[in-house]
Amino acid sequence: MYRSHSCGELRASDINKEVTLSGWVQKTRDKGFMIWVDLRDRYGITQLIFDEERTPRAVVEKAKTLGREFVIQIKGTVIERESKNKNIQTGEIEILVNELTVLNEAIVPPFTIEDKTDGGEDIRMKYRYLDIRRNPVKNSLVFRHQVAMQVRNYLSKEGFIEVETPYLIKSTPEGARDFVVPSRMNEGQFYALPQSPQTFKQLLMVGGMDKYFQIVKCFRDEDLRADRQPEFTQIDCEMAFVEQEDILNTFEGLTRHLITEIKNISIGDFHRMTYNEAMQTYGNDKPDIRFGMKFGELNKAAQHKEFKVFNDAELVVGIAVPDGASYTRKEIDKLIDWVKRPQVGALGMVYVKCNEDGTYKSSVDKFYDQDDLAKWAEITRAKAGDLICVLSGQTNKVRAQLSALRMELAERLGLRNPEEFAPLWVVDFPLLEWDEETERYHAMHHPFTSPKPEDIDLLDTKPGEVRANAYDLVLNGNEIGGGSIRIHDKETQALMFDHLGFTPEEAKAQFGFLMDAFQYGAPPHGGIAFGLDRLVAILGGQETIRDFIAFPKNNSGRDIMIDAPSNIDDTQLKELNIKLDL
Amino acid sequence: MYRSHSCGELRASDINKEVTLSGWVQKTRDKGFMIWVDLRDRYGITQLIFDEERTPRAVVEKAKTLGREFVIQIKGTVIERESKNKNIQTGEIEILVNELTVLNEAIVPPFTIEDKTDGGEDIRMKYRYLDIRRNPVKNSLVFRHQVAMQVRNYLSKEGFIEVETPYLIKSTPEGARDFVVPSRMNEGQFYALPQSPQTFKQLLMVGGMDKYFQIVKCFRDEDLRADRQPEFTQIDCEMAFVEQEDILNTFEGLTRHLITEIKNISIGDFHRMTYNEAMQTYGNDKPDIRFGMKFGELNKAAQHKEFKVFNDAELVVGIAVPDGASYTRKEIDKLIDWVKRPQVGALGMVYVKCNEDGTYKSSVDKFYDQDDLAKWAEITRAKAGDLICVLSGQTNKVRAQLSALRMELAERLGLRNPEEFAPLWVVDFPLLEWDEETERYHAMHHPFTSPKPEDIDLLDTKPGEVRANAYDLVLNGNEIGGGSIRIHDKETQALMFDHLGFTPEEAKAQFGFLMDAFQYGAPPHGGIAFGLDRLVAILGGQETIRDFIAFPKNNSGRDIMIDAPSNIDDTQLKELNIKLDL
Repeated sequence: MYRSHSCGELRASDINKEVTLSGWVQKTRDKGFMIWVDLRDRYGITQLIFDEERTPRAVVEKAKTLGREFVIQIKGTVIERESKNKNIQTGEIEILVNELTVLNEAIVPPFTIEDKTDGGEDIRMKYRYLDIRRNPVKNSLVFRHQVAMQVRNYLSKEGFIEVETPYLIKSTPEGARDFVVPSRMNEGQFYALPQSPQTFKQLLMVGGMDKYFQIVKCFRDEDLRADRQPEFTQIDCEMAFVEQEDILNTFEGLTRHLITEIKNISIGDFHRMTYNEAMQTYGNDKPDIRFGMKFGELNKAAQHKEFKVFNDAELVVGIAVPDGASYTRKEIDKLIDWVKRPQVGALGMVYVKCNEDGTYKSSVDKFYDQDDLAKWAEITRAKAGDLICVLSGQTNKVRAQLSALRMELAERLGLRNPEEFAPLWVVDFPLLEWDEETERYHAMHHPFTSPKPEDIDLLDTKPGEVRANAYDLVLNGNEIGGGSIRIHDKETQALMFDHLGFTPEEAKAQFGFLMDAFQYGAPPHGGIAFGLDRLVAILGGQETIRDFIAFPKNNSGRDIMIDAPSNIDDTQLKELNIKLDL
Repeated sequence: MYRSHSCGELRASDINKEVTLSGWVQKTRDKGFMIWVDLRDRYGITQLIFDEERTPRAVVEKAKTLGREFVIQIKGTVIERESKNKNIQTGEIEILVNELTVLNEAIVPPFTIEDKTDGGEDIRMKYRYLDIRRNPVKNSLVFRHQVAMQVRNYLSKEGFIEVETPYLIKSTPEGARDFVVPSRMNEGQFYALPQSPQTFKQLLMVGGMDKYFQIVKCFRDEDLRADRQPEFTQIDCEMAFVEQEDILNTFEGLTRHLITEIKNISIGDFHRMTYNEAMQTYGNDKPDIRFGMKFGELNKAAQHKEFKVFNDAELVVGIAVPDGASYTRKEIDKLIDWVKRPQVGALGMVYVKCNEDGTYKSSVDKFYDQDDLAKWAEITRAKAGDLICVLSGQTNKVRAQLSALRMELAERLGLRNPEEFAPLWVVDFPLLEWDEETERYHAMHHPFTSPKPEDIDLLDTKPGEVRANAYDLVLNGNEIGGGSIRIHDKETQALMFDHLGFTPEEAKAQFGFLMDAFQYGAPPHGGIAFGLDRLVAILGGQETIRDFIAFPKNNSGRDIMIDAPSNIDDTQLKELNIKLDL
């Protein structure tokens, strides 16, 4: 038996017990006649003491040879600690050691195993198994487990059944890129790894499973933007005999449960907003509603004068920055520089200071009088002391720019309270979006999303205006889940494929099995999928998802610890009936 | 709202309630003035009644058009049923319908959606979504979910953390075959899908996670024997600071919990047996110990006479068949034919009838006298009335043959009680096994399994006799789990790779990251993995695992429902930098 207790377990009430502990040497302090060792395991740290008077001489000698991260086992007696440490749970006791076994030695680790380490990202990824020993990473993984358990137990109690869908499926040319897997037994043919279990969960609904969920890995072979992974985990859910309202209520319940159980924070009703309202009010389909600075559209109030920049713009829109009127000229110039950075891309920014005395001072005083500016203040809800920032240009671009500015200012002003959780449903997404590159409409969500019945007639005339039964769940400015009510009849599905540019033959070859299934009594159904990696990071109060993934890949899709992907040998290629074509 | 209740929910206490139900038409009985419809969903069946006197005429007319598997919604009143059906939980009530909506029509399904269907395996696989509507499949999937939840909650309470390990890993030439995945971003390189998360879970132990588990898909691209799948699910577990005894106790706890909770059966202590004992006593390393018929080795008692067949054999071994002495000559001939089938492969069988009067009658009376046969009876534990079956030949072969005969007879004699669960630990597996084809030793478990310290010296002299710290959990003749205490130091791991025929360079290229990790303070560790598909099938009292997998593949590794694997187009191949080589 390697241990009688963990290193986080012993308390004052255990004093005088004979115990056996195992763990890693966190640090040693050698005072000559006395040696202290902090022994660490997953559960905590316990202080060991080797004392020349009370510990056998040979054991003391051996203790002097211990280095950082050695794995040891000790036997000893729990004694009261002289200088208690209130910061750790075992801080009232220490172990007077009388036996010491070195279970494994350790060479010096490439970075310190401390909460604040001296190791950079790359070295920590290469030695991820050492990084995991650090509390921030270890705790994130434990936290992820707890969230996943809460999700499973909640959904299970609500009658959902977790069903495993296959990983070796069929490649689809639609959407982001598939990872493919050559089949040895079926020469020249390939499986694909699922980008999501979408069609399978719909087939489970056709199969009468009624309420399905799965915490499942999904795969996407695309250029990795920061904080994306080629393999990622979804909480994938589907329900039969539901309308949008049923889905929203069910997953409002799940989200509330998580925030309540995990964060011990009670939250009010979930806000709801249409996609159009979100775009108009926040310039963004995943607005952070923990703070205001709502957009005020100024076209009417600003396009009646001689200011050509505004008059030529598709959209003129502003936000009021709380207490921004006190910004110096230099500070405002910096803000203008910020919006002109290539990442944001604005050409300039107009500002209006709302003075405490009720007057206005703007960068466009040449064109606009006090009444004009008062009107702007009213529209942007600016109070005396605020600063109005106004951008103009092509609608989609200017919304994105002002949204970026709004988020940046909120961050600087400390308006994004990490202890506050403000969930929001964004509903009524467009069914289709125009793709400039391919010059055709794409499904904004996916081709299985149902259009709103009252908008179906617009499919032929104004396809861009057709609204879908689609919804996103947004938490503090992050999309944490998205879903839709699906098409469940063969005709509508065929119509949809037609509008997405599939020939009937292509549709049949790719999704014939689904359209066939719809003929045998498909129930109305819909669902949602949450990105677990991001959800856990947000609940954990972190920005980056990597610490919540045990073995993440880097931006090139490489696992630098195991050095994958890698070359495979010719025999293997031959057996798979493929060759390289570089 | 599609429904106020499910189809399995309403009881006599709900009489007079106005309800809305949705579901599938299981069957209709049209008596002209009255129509009954059985409405089905996941939760049960509720009888609907359309009554010319009490139901609106148009509704009755519409009800006459309903076909099997139509999806409908009805509103009506819960009333008391005239002829109650005690077999179903809703059998005391029926719904007097006054509104009917057809949500989706259905064409005639290719097989009946009944517990006993008329559909063969192939057609049911092609239309798996219809097969899932049938109770046997649906209930198996629900059962699987319940088992998985029990596993997760039990292990979680025991302090295990579920950690997701990557699916896109590195290909290893060792062991069964990898599925590989070409990387678009890393030209000419490949990921592999994991055959198991073995090295990752060991790295998690090096990383101090202490107790890990994961219910995880694993992949093996090999010829599929009946009831194997290219993707399969494991309950993968690992613990640090443990000896074999700790692992056996922990997972004895899990298995006991499952059998108690799921089957409501309490079981006694788990038996233990060494690999050698299992092979000698049952001819098999996964013996079904619910019944006797233990092997009796007869070399000493049978090789002293002129019977050349026995004298030339490496092993002469028999079992006693309870009450087999009454078998007719014809029945015994049939048994002899059975063992001579190519699947079993014996050349013949010697038998001894143990007559009720204490005398013996054998097929080798020419060579052996009554004293000899009495001795055989003693060794095989045969009682008066039993039949002794004796096989002889090369040890491994004859053991396999007699083991097959033992199982067959037990099946015929009804000795394999499906309500009994008799778990057994088989321990002390050999570390290495000789492979005739490659003419070298292979790791019997895997290259990370530790040898028993007292046997290490045999590695150079008698490698086949080195025992490993490896164990299997066997349930009713099926291996449901297997594991080992791992090597945790670089030197032993290098020694092991050396004995498996790796050059140091090959070992470093493949597993350098693991051996590196062992230098930084690796704790002693070990683990186990359970095959969830089989475990669930056995707990569910079934022989085949397919019904417990939502979308299984056939023996050629094909998903015939979605028609995968399939061809992919040239553009896709080009982007992946590969071409076909048929």
